[in-house]
Amino acid sequence: AEPENIENTVLLIGFGRFGQIVSQPVLARGYTLSIIDSNAEFIRDIGDFGFKVYYGDGVRPEILHAAGAATARAILICVDDKEAALKIAEIVKEEFPLVPVLARAYDRGHAIDLLKAGVDYQVRETYDSALNFGGEVLRTLGEADETALQMVEEFREIDRERFALEQVGGIYAGRSLIKGNAQPADIIAAKTARERERRAAAQDAAQGAAR
Amino acid sequence: AEPENIENTVLLIGFGRFGQIVSQPVLARGYTLSIIDSNAEFIRDIGDFGFKVYYGDGVRPEILHAAGAATARAILICVDDKEAALKIAEIVKEEFPLVPVLARAYDRGHAIDLLKAGVDYQVRETYDSALNFGGEVLRTLGEADETALQMVEEFREIDRERFALEQVGGIYAGRSLIKGNAQPADIIAAKTARERERRAAAQDAAQGAAR
Repeated sequence: AEPENIENTVLLIGFGRFGQIVSQPVLARGYTLSIIDSNAEFIRDIGDFGFKVYYGDGVRPEILHAAGAATARAILICVDDKEAALKIAEIVKEEFPLVPVLARAYDRGHAIDLLKAGVDYQVRETYDSALNFGGEVLRTLGEADETALQMVEEFREIDRERFALEQVGGIYAGRSLIKGNAQPADIIAAKTARERERRAAAQDAAQGAAR
Repeated sequence: AEPENIENTVLLIGFGRFGQIVSQPVLARGYTLSIIDSNAEFIRDIGDFGFKVYYGDGVRPEILHAAGAATARAILICVDDKEAALKIAEIVKEEFPLVPVLARAYDRGHAIDLLKAGVDYQVRETYDSALNFGGEVLRTLGEADETALQMVEEFREIDRERFALEQVGGIYAGRSLIKGNAQPADIIAAKTARERERRAAAQDAAQGAAR
């Protein structure tokens, strides 16, 4: 079946754990969602929950066109495959440059790649749950709710700064903003061990060359 | 190497994308973290970022003991393997029944299983990022920030209710709380197609039995 009445809808690509949650506040506010997913069996099962999902993998321009990408108010890339997400981002930014694109990112490196591909917004898929989990740990340890929320907010700021540094300088760039658990002695021991290995490797190479 | 000074620490099992974020507000507040992970190569690399991580897979009681589980102030299960997380939850609740346990859940079904295993807190790993993404979609569509936040908060309430129903009655129990995108005609068409298939299958079975 081909999608009908697809003008002015929001196009959601990938309807797993992530896309399903994304859809709820959008549908609750009265927007029309055109949904595509590449798992045929899943599309059938999700019908029992009141969803109409079209089959397609989102990396083919003709599928995107058929699903209304050209006239969409926004395109939401919510697939769980890193490479596919990036490919879809590149295609939609090329084919539909005026449509805002929001994307689910796997990790920091993927987030940077998606921004380079031109997406207008990205969120790392486990970031917010992990951070709220960190706040809950503090509450469990006896900290006041206010303190837990403050530590979480402070970290959000630090992480934003770290991410900005990484976007320019790569994944080591924001390293000084990370709080480690290693003691100074651990760090020195690790460096010494690494230095020793490096010297041993260099010596082996030199002996190999001399033979 | 064996962990040292492990009394009164927080034990974190699984130090990937999720565990790393969890660690930050906890370390920033001055708590001591004992961290274990089952990826040896990763443990070495993460040393460059100031972390001391012990090798172990968390499903063996002797590893948990060595990492300080018995005297830990909390145990955080942050592994990305559903089955392993559940097994760790069962082991720690059996061996260290007085230590609070917080766990990363994969999806709704996994969250329910973890609670049945006795964990004190769980969060679905992509839930909060997906919900915030939904709020951002509304902002992109031109809704006021206030409206976006309100829709997100309203959905949180609905989802809490749905989850409570599912805990008692299984994954179909909270179905009426889900907002679908299907039109009434789609739903009737899907039901009719399914009914036709069921009848055809029953007929095939009857014919098979009659032969």
